[in-house]
Amino acid sequence: MTRPHTPLLDRVIGPSDLRAFDDAELATLADEVRAEVIDAVSVTGGHLGSSLGVVELTVAIHAVFNAPHDKLIWDVGHQCYPHKILTERRSRIRTLRQKGGLSGFTKRSESEFDPFGAAHSSTSISAALGFATARDLGMETGDAIAVIGDGAASAGMAFEALNNAGAEGRRLIVILNDNEMSIAPPVGALSKYMSGINTGPTPFPKLGEEEVDTDDPDALRAYAQRARTLVTAQPAKGTLFEELGFSYLGPIDGHDMDQLLAALRNVKTRADGPVLIHCCTVKGKGYEPAEASADCYHGVAKFDVPTGEQKKSKPNAPSYTSVFGKTLVAEAGRDPKIVGITAAMPSGTGIDHLMKAFPDRAFDVGIAEQHAVTFAAGLAAAGMRPFCAIYSSFLQRAYDQIVHDVALQNLPVRFAMDRAGLVGADGATHAGAFDIGYLSHLPNFTVMAAADEAELVHMVATAVDFDEGPIAFRYPRGAGVGVELPEYGVPLEIGKGRVVREGSDVALLSLGAHLSECLIAAETLQTRGVSATVADARFAKPFDKALIRQLLRHHEALICVEQGACGGFGAHVLEWLARDGAFDRGAKVRTMTLPDRFIDQATPDEMYEDAGLTAEDITGTVLETLGVVDGRFGLAT
Amino acid sequence: MTRPHTPLLDRVIGPSDLRAFDDAELATLADEVRAEVIDAVSVTGGHLGSSLGVVELTVAIHAVFNAPHDKLIWDVGHQCYPHKILTERRSRIRTLRQKGGLSGFTKRSESEFDPFGAAHSSTSISAALGFATARDLGMETGDAIAVIGDGAASAGMAFEALNNAGAEGRRLIVILNDNEMSIAPPVGALSKYMSGINTGPTPFPKLGEEEVDTDDPDALRAYAQRARTLVTAQPAKGTLFEELGFSYLGPIDGHDMDQLLAALRNVKTRADGPVLIHCCTVKGKGYEPAEASADCYHGVAKFDVPTGEQKKSKPNAPSYTSVFGKTLVAEAGRDPKIVGITAAMPSGTGIDHLMKAFPDRAFDVGIAEQHAVTFAAGLAAAGMRPFCAIYSSFLQRAYDQIVHDVALQNLPVRFAMDRAGLVGADGATHAGAFDIGYLSHLPNFTVMAAADEAELVHMVATAVDFDEGPIAFRYPRGAGVGVELPEYGVPLEIGKGRVVREGSDVALLSLGAHLSECLIAAETLQTRGVSATVADARFAKPFDKALIRQLLRHHEALICVEQGACGGFGAHVLEWLARDGAFDRGAKVRTMTLPDRFIDQATPDEMYEDAGLTAEDITGTVLETLGVVDGRFGLAT
Repeated sequence: MTRPHTPLLDRVIGPSDLRAFDDAELATLADEVRAEVIDAVSVTGGHLGSSLGVVELTVAIHAVFNAPHDKLIWDVGHQCYPHKILTERRSRIRTLRQKGGLSGFTKRSESEFDPFGAAHSSTSISAALGFATARDLGMETGDAIAVIGDGAASAGMAFEALNNAGAEGRRLIVILNDNEMSIAPPVGALSKYMSGINTGPTPFPKLGEEEVDTDDPDALRAYAQRARTLVTAQPAKGTLFEELGFSYLGPIDGHDMDQLLAALRNVKTRADGPVLIHCCTVKGKGYEPAEASADCYHGVAKFDVPTGEQKKSKPNAPSYTSVFGKTLVAEAGRDPKIVGITAAMPSGTGIDHLMKAFPDRAFDVGIAEQHAVTFAAGLAAAGMRPFCAIYSSFLQRAYDQIVHDVALQNLPVRFAMDRAGLVGADGATHAGAFDIGYLSHLPNFTVMAAADEAELVHMVATAVDFDEGPIAFRYPRGAGVGVELPEYGVPLEIGKGRVVREGSDVALLSLGAHLSECLIAAETLQTRGVSATVADARFAKPFDKALIRQLLRHHEALICVEQGACGGFGAHVLEWLARDGAFDRGAKVRTMTLPDRFIDQATPDEMYEDAGLTAEDITGTVLETLGVVDGRFGLAT
Repeated sequence: MTRPHTPLLDRVIGPSDLRAFDDAELATLADEVRAEVIDAVSVTGGHLGSSLGVVELTVAIHAVFNAPHDKLIWDVGHQCYPHKILTERRSRIRTLRQKGGLSGFTKRSESEFDPFGAAHSSTSISAALGFATARDLGMETGDAIAVIGDGAASAGMAFEALNNAGAEGRRLIVILNDNEMSIAPPVGALSKYMSGINTGPTPFPKLGEEEVDTDDPDALRAYAQRARTLVTAQPAKGTLFEELGFSYLGPIDGHDMDQLLAALRNVKTRADGPVLIHCCTVKGKGYEPAEASADCYHGVAKFDVPTGEQKKSKPNAPSYTSVFGKTLVAEAGRDPKIVGITAAMPSGTGIDHLMKAFPDRAFDVGIAEQHAVTFAAGLAAAGMRPFCAIYSSFLQRAYDQIVHDVALQNLPVRFAMDRAGLVGADGATHAGAFDIGYLSHLPNFTVMAAADEAELVHMVATAVDFDEGPIAFRYPRGAGVGVELPEYGVPLEIGKGRVVREGSDVALLSLGAHLSECLIAAETLQTRGVSATVADARFAKPFDKALIRQLLRHHEALICVEQGACGGFGAHVLEWLARDGAFDRGAKVRTMTLPDRFIDQATPDEMYEDAGLTAEDITGTVLETLGVVDGRFGLAT
């Protein structure tokens, strides 16, 4: 394998090495960093497009500012590969997103150059304001710089932070990385507004050389005003950001090293309050296959550098996401009240299928989970049947809206929760670990988990039919298990599970996609002389009390298994059993959940192994619970 | 008791009755409604200031629009008393906030005139967009009108909704009720910005009579532009709302019936997209004691109408809130790294004490819980010791920030969770029911609950000292139990409970403020021949395993009691006991939590009675668990 030729980059360990270069060399260094990013991601897969868009910006920031004393906070963090290369992590860059390797996001525990980790969007300005405030209160920290994309800036949290920072008036640097892309093209009025002031990579005449020749404290503001006027010819109009109290500088060409260095040096020297630098970039910049692609190679598999061809392994079964998307379209064809909502993830959630089939009944509200849920609640209150499709971990963003607008009002919003359980390379931030708990303790909620893709089809149908209150169904990331898909979904009986395998010694009660692991465990147990019943709970709430009573009556022990944190399905079963007096009679019950720690990135299988939640772990728990040694029971009780 | 003289209002049952009045009579009607609101709240207590500010607006909306076909959505909902009076609920208005009476907020289950309930802020535009969208998809519903205060508009969720609605372009009416007040004076850049365009109750010359004499679809926008120019003399400047895609109309005087009617009629006739009406009002308008008060009588006790003197009952003990606020100031005096953060509730949370003592170390970030938590995380990452003081139910707003920015990064943010458990007149929306569950299932978290106000002092000290990760402590609304307060707090040993009363038959393990109920139950049990140990768990996480083992070893049964939903402390104890094999040996354990339904407003005591969580209920559960009849055990086992 030939690595790119990178003579300047080879002299860089950390950002302080950038001080040896002049401006022209920094531009060349950026080219080398770009080549290194492309080469590395071709080996690992990952978030290529975003990282390519900020190569020059990353070099310029590290050349002008002084990390780690200055705190550089990348919003979302998936554009951080150039940053990692320049901050002492180049030697590990080809371990990105692998088990034991570099995180695909910024991560505090990985490097002092990552002062605040991310992965979910729109947190950077809040965190940067925290650092800036701490500095002003005497902590040993320098400038706080948040780099946030235009997609992420549309989320309410970013607005809250701008609103607060603008009023506080502290020195704080926000770089708006405006590539006119979220993961999908961005939506919303703010995006249209920014397109209005973003005239594209327009030359920024002479701004770099211009000297602000006064000690006037408003110099920077005047300078910014002048700069914008040059570009937009809109001298009288204050930008939205200025209205919120920021000095506004831009738009500048985020791939022009001279413009970047000039702007950053001026801000570093002169900022006496919050400054927003509006920086226009091209997602996928400098790699033709990425620039030509619709999603700018947002997230890619390993690929061939010359052609850009991705080496995607052919899955054996359709993904849960596509099964959901197609099933929703089929149901929507029969029921005009069905609508779909996504928060900036049309293809990630499968809502893109509905968008194509029924464009006026699918809504991408932008990165705005809070609004998405209450918008869905409004639709439900008006008699529609809304499906709100949000990943389990991102739905955490709308928890109060779920409690206050949906559960309290008992409104029939349907929640399609993709990426439930451990998700692989995206790591702990994206794990769908908590939804069983945070939904099941809410009154009025019905919570399901799909054991396979056929079950998912039936759960969509169940949700369509269910107008009595909120209902949620969760399913994992990736390909289904390969079962035959039914022609159409048949609504499940609410609160009823099913027995999948009959046995006599132990009952495994699985909620969700670990059913397959339970079945493997059952086969292994058979070889150890233990006969296992395997049941699929289907419903975390209301759970099937009759089934649980029956399982307890006819088996030595009951093991509840779920792909989620403690305090979930199993815990609720235990509370009921305790109240029911089952334990007074010596019922042997165990719950198997994710452990009480975050699980680092790896393949999902490796992560479940780390979590102690494999078929082997289930087998072990059964044998230990039953006190089985050599096929004889009861030795340990 | 003399009721106000209200001849016009006496002819009104529902809003359709307003059509019998001419514009002058509507203005008189508003005066009568105001008198009725003042009189009613003098009897019940409640949110007076907000309701007085929207009297004219409420009359005008109901005169122009056609509820319930048109959907009127009041943000937060605490300004809805005039609305309730005009929508068939006048006869019950003196039951506001009482058990079995009218809710102090809008509530779907109460009336068809409340199409979307509220209590937490900033949800109205999202919900209204849901109704507007459903209408455009063929549902039988008319105009959607959201009325939102300037404080509530500063929250990110409202921005998300404006951003989406502006881009969608549907007919939608947002009325910005700009009274330059949240509960406290509003903070943030948006508020400053709006003050810039709000010139106060300026005359709005001739706008009411002006005719828009063209079929031009941009007529309304031009009209709005013209109207603003008249008032602000800023013709060239687009407002922030226009930049987000809204037609902007205003500012208008929200107490001038002619201006209101003219604006609303024009919007009703001509709006062909999203319109924002900027309406300036005075909180507490028309009642001198309210207008003269700093908080404009935001929330009041019963009061004397002529003098405005409130009949507050003298509590026997200081409130938990003030104990927290004063303790934090004492700790901050010793430790310069301590800072405090509130989301628009300085006095509600007690952070006002810190604001007075250390103004540069207390931050009111506005109604912006998401930002508040990540801002605190940034402060913690920079080495400060931030106390983020947010009510239990409002902290739900920042759940993902707690997971993603705090727990995942293991940052030592201190969460002071006031209003834990059932809170009384504010009802189910304000109940702090879920925090034990939604925090205890997060890795890295330490979760405490204060049994009394002295414990709270120690827990603040514990949190100050604890730099290892996030730590939260919860405490109830209202007065403490009257224990002597320690001079200074002494950090508790992490994860250790304490035995408060020694007994031998049953162990009551209480988490939090129900310790007092457990002690009462223990006394009652004594009279039934049952000797009860009472322990205070102090920590929901990590809980005291040694204590629990010991309690189980020496008692017939263990009852866990908490002021929270299922899936909380007790559930986590059960999961551990199951894993530990305790149930295989027949351990008798019960958990007592809030039931799986929302509890309606009443006094806290009545609400706990409704919830089955009184001392008597605890006694009953013990007797049943032990199978006690006439002081003899074991009959039921």
